[in-house]
Amino acid sequence: MVYFTVGPTQLFSEVKNFIKEALTEDILSISHRGEKFKKIYDFAERSLRKLLDVPDTHEIFFFSSATEIMERILQNCVEKHSFHVVNGAFSERFYQIARELGKEPHILRKEWGSGIYPDEVKVEKQDEIICMVQNETSTGVSIPMEVIYGIKESYPDKILAIDIVSSAPYVDINFRMVDIAFFSVQKGFGLPAGLGVCILHKQCIQKAKSLANRGISIGSYHGFLNIHKKSIDKQTVETPNVLGIYLLGKICEFFISTKGTDSLKNIVRKHAGMIYESIEDSKVFGAFVKENYFRSETTIVLESKYGSKSVLDFLRGKGIEVSSGYGKFKDRHLRIGNFAMHTTKEVEELLTSLNIFEEKSLKS
Amino acid sequence: MVYFTVGPTQLFSEVKNFIKEALTEDILSISHRGEKFKKIYDFAERSLRKLLDVPDTHEIFFFSSATEIMERILQNCVEKHSFHVVNGAFSERFYQIARELGKEPHILRKEWGSGIYPDEVKVEKQDEIICMVQNETSTGVSIPMEVIYGIKESYPDKILAIDIVSSAPYVDINFRMVDIAFFSVQKGFGLPAGLGVCILHKQCIQKAKSLANRGISIGSYHGFLNIHKKSIDKQTVETPNVLGIYLLGKICEFFISTKGTDSLKNIVRKHAGMIYESIEDSKVFGAFVKENYFRSETTIVLESKYGSKSVLDFLRGKGIEVSSGYGKFKDRHLRIGNFAMHTTKEVEELLTSLNIFEEKSLKS
Repeated sequence: MVYFTVGPTQLFSEVKNFIKEALTEDILSISHRGEKFKKIYDFAERSLRKLLDVPDTHEIFFFSSATEIMERILQNCVEKHSFHVVNGAFSERFYQIARELGKEPHILRKEWGSGIYPDEVKVEKQDEIICMVQNETSTGVSIPMEVIYGIKESYPDKILAIDIVSSAPYVDINFRMVDIAFFSVQKGFGLPAGLGVCILHKQCIQKAKSLANRGISIGSYHGFLNIHKKSIDKQTVETPNVLGIYLLGKICEFFISTKGTDSLKNIVRKHAGMIYESIEDSKVFGAFVKENYFRSETTIVLESKYGSKSVLDFLRGKGIEVSSGYGKFKDRHLRIGNFAMHTTKEVEELLTSLNIFEEKSLKS
Repeated sequence: MVYFTVGPTQLFSEVKNFIKEALTEDILSISHRGEKFKKIYDFAERSLRKLLDVPDTHEIFFFSSATEIMERILQNCVEKHSFHVVNGAFSERFYQIARELGKEPHILRKEWGSGIYPDEVKVEKQDEIICMVQNETSTGVSIPMEVIYGIKESYPDKILAIDIVSSAPYVDINFRMVDIAFFSVQKGFGLPAGLGVCILHKQCIQKAKSLANRGISIGSYHGFLNIHKKSIDKQTVETPNVLGIYLLGKICEFFISTKGTDSLKNIVRKHAGMIYESIEDSKVFGAFVKENYFRSETTIVLESKYGSKSVLDFLRGKGIEVSSGYGKFKDRHLRIGNFAMHTTKEVEELLTSLNIFEEKSLKS
């Protein structure tokens, strides 16, 4: 089966070898307090820093999921008020977590499938952070980074936090304009699930400190101050997902080794072009995101005239798995995870299969 | 290298095959919302329930580490006051997490290396929960379950929570006398790190509900109410460590398949006897825990006349890795993880090596 799902998704074929190496090298048995682990941690951190061009102003922290990271950001960076752009299921979750933590979040709600322009965003004076999902896995909306930079320019004093769960590591980020970006590894990195990564400006640790000093709970073991203290020594507070951190370093190294037109970013761009082009004249499939400007290259969401189930079943018969729609669109949408582990041949097979489905269904 | 470390530790040799199976069966790519995952979740839950004899009164929840579970218990079961028996590093952490969360914990502090008897425990009326570490990985103290039942008998209305991180699945627990027991999988289960498991009485979910209803934050995505809601459908709130859950089910099935004198519990008991016996007349090594009654079978802590470093180095030269002491005892103790993945031959090699070290060091 080839997984064009939005995450967990197909592993990079290299990952199987990395796992075998991990087993051979006893990576799953070593102490998380020993030198060997510290080297693994350091390698993962340095490789990721290089891959995503993360400056020294920012720290890299490991968590267990992107969902956890949403919670920890709101605990550590918000005394009372957060501001949320909500245009899909995951931005909604970010907002709901703020509420569950007893914060008082403000919200700018947009239709599912809509993007946002900088001048729509009105952040209130008391808001401490702007929370956005840069690439909405539920809808296939991608907010271009220039929009996000525009918002930061209007509100330079607010912490800007973006979820790049399903666009990393393909989206280019200028970290001078982004305070926090976070993701999990079971999507674009093509790794097993169970690790979240948060890149955050050092000022966020200061913010956590100032909250803690004023007696506001910033959580416990995964409060930014505790994590930061351990991270200096290339360790985690708890026994972490050691395999996950090991694999992250290895896959980053692999990404870095691909260059030029063969770079993994270019592959994703090329395949996204192929997929969107193939449905342009389709009578069955259409892009859910109407504005070209907001269409994601990594999570491509299609409306299907005949619903999702028959298409999913048909593709499965061809050895291809794609994701159904999310939430209220479960039965109407297809979501295609377009990450760089897929070969052009696999993408062609996906498109051929969709085409055959279309011809068959229009005839019957 | 053979890992007699206290965790992460040696994997069961079966685990490598389970991982290969997981790769072959695309377990790392499947959706965490699909039927295949639900079956994996259900199998892990049912197998663990069978292995540990967990009654229907208790739920099983998955987390990312035992440290996380300490936080979630205190968030979800405590409005204000928790009671902690602290006799080592991990019981200290449980207590500190309560403080970091802004609770008002009470403490009964004992020397590292000491156990506790039921009549020493005086819990105050307002305390909502009794928190104990049944098996202290830092010191090798194991509180016999009869002591813990005695405490519960004295305080039947308090929630009793025990950390069995380094004794599971070898310790027998009567869950009619224990409300919460939790562990992580990189110790006695011989699995890769990155998964914590909490077994909790349904009344703990009711407690969380009553806190939430009174406007007290019980956390967000990993609040017991959110987890419980998803668990009914054999799912997790976030994208979990799918491999970890898969491996847990497989290793539980393996444990269940061993019976009689070959049962994995009996193997651990036998090996523990061998290890303690071997140092009885030693002039170099002695058990750190002075009272026999409190000596752990799974984490055996030795004082070393010549400190830990030279012993660790010597053993490493023999292809054996044991853990150093914890915290203030780092340079003075050895900690031996005695779990059932070790063969009797490996234990004999460990003991022979310790004996050679002793003879050499006494001569020189």
